[in-house]
Amino acid sequence: MEARQLRKKIRQGVFDGTTSGASGENVQANIVILPKSYAFDFLLYAMRNQKAVPIIEVIEDGKVESIYAEGSDIRTDVPKYNIYKEGVLTETVADIRDYWQSDFVTFLIGCSFTFEQAILEADIEVKHIKQGRNVAMYKTDIATTSAGIFSGELVVSMRPFEKPLVDRVSDITAQFPNMHGRPVHYGDPSAIGITDIMHPEYGEAIDIGEDEVPVFWACGVTPQNAALNAKPEIMITHAPGHMFVTDMYNEDFKTT
Amino acid sequence: MEARQLRKKIRQGVFDGTTSGASGENVQANIVILPKSYAFDFLLYAMRNQKAVPIIEVIEDGKVESIYAEGSDIRTDVPKYNIYKEGVLTETVADIRDYWQSDFVTFLIGCSFTFEQAILEADIEVKHIKQGRNVAMYKTDIATTSAGIFSGELVVSMRPFEKPLVDRVSDITAQFPNMHGRPVHYGDPSAIGITDIMHPEYGEAIDIGEDEVPVFWACGVTPQNAALNAKPEIMITHAPGHMFVTDMYNEDFKTT
Repeated sequence: MEARQLRKKIRQGVFDGTTSGASGENVQANIVILPKSYAFDFLLYAMRNQKAVPIIEVIEDGKVESIYAEGSDIRTDVPKYNIYKEGVLTETVADIRDYWQSDFVTFLIGCSFTFEQAILEADIEVKHIKQGRNVAMYKTDIATTSAGIFSGELVVSMRPFEKPLVDRVSDITAQFPNMHGRPVHYGDPSAIGITDIMHPEYGEAIDIGEDEVPVFWACGVTPQNAALNAKPEIMITHAPGHMFVTDMYNEDFKTT
Repeated sequence: MEARQLRKKIRQGVFDGTTSGASGENVQANIVILPKSYAFDFLLYAMRNQKAVPIIEVIEDGKVESIYAEGSDIRTDVPKYNIYKEGVLTETVADIRDYWQSDFVTFLIGCSFTFEQAILEADIEVKHIKQGRNVAMYKTDIATTSAGIFSGELVVSMRPFEKPLVDRVSDITAQFPNMHGRPVHYGDPSAIGITDIMHPEYGEAIDIGEDEVPVFWACGVTPQNAALNAKPEIMITHAPGHMFVTDMYNEDFKTT
């Protein structure tokens, strides 16, 4: 489906599922929306933790259209939004027009769906996509660099691959430095503070075969974890896996 | 002179000249200091105009020491500061402790002195350094991308080189993408809106020999020009050519 068409279906409430695999050639973005009073701290947090929080675009207060998605409205074009108040997830909704404030600033953040597409195009299977599930995401014990009120541990996404494929998969994702790039770790989950691989903090669990190795990437859900610590008055994000689909192509973010 | 020693002399008021050529191996930074209420707009302006405003470090409100300059105090360790009130240069001072506000945020911005050192090391003369002058800087008609209250034209620095050397000089500076990188233009000044090459808006004029070509780079004075338009209540910068000297080495910013 064309990105523009997909956004229209999302806006109409016809499409409300995960955008994984939908409009696969287009760049999909994590979303963080905050009042402007928190925007400096957040932008600085992103700059200091670029691997987890690569900023693609900032939609300034007073605006709702992304320059990378013609005719878009950030208040209606994400399938599911999480509303956090004082760091507590209070609601998951399909439309945030009733919550919108004139001082809201929107951050579009790079997403691993971009490199997943590149893995698929190299004829390598991505297990959770094949199984039609959301990716598994974990809180690690790796500290991010704090900025203002934002701090906390790195969140990672995990995909299992057969051991002989790990290097190739790493090299493929390394071509997208603004979409989380190379894995931060592979192998033993406990080495990065993950105690139970079958119980991810976000997304869905996936079994790891005997011949497979879990591979971990920095994840754009990291700022949602930071928000739990920062407890801003209000913060709105996409629901994990339910992204904002832009008109840009994944290929445009590939470095050679 | 060692960077730390130079900062000490500056703090004591013993050294108050241009830092061009002083502590040449160390990274020197342009400085912008703003109340936190303007910090988001400014950081976004920097992100959107990275070639002119490459951020090296942000010193958050409540702090005065750079992580890249041990024992430093940003209120005393720059040889000369410009104080702008409502966009008007009101004073040039050697110490800003009397002006300091607890909500001040400091931005360290990459500086062309880094690539000048690399040019010198390639045994190519840099004319204004040889003549002991400040570099010539001009306002162009190239628009920067605005963010919040900040907007305006790109400011460039100019160095004349003999024509056969231009490509080599370009390639040398391109190795420092976070220190303004490759030139934005060379040749006819009027092509980028410079009407009188002998009257630069900032720094000192330099004559261009018959066999020489003027070469122009994006310049860290660009935000000072943007401040003239934005008119923030107060903004403090280094005086052009009078930089903050860090402990970092130019080499560390070289990409291969």
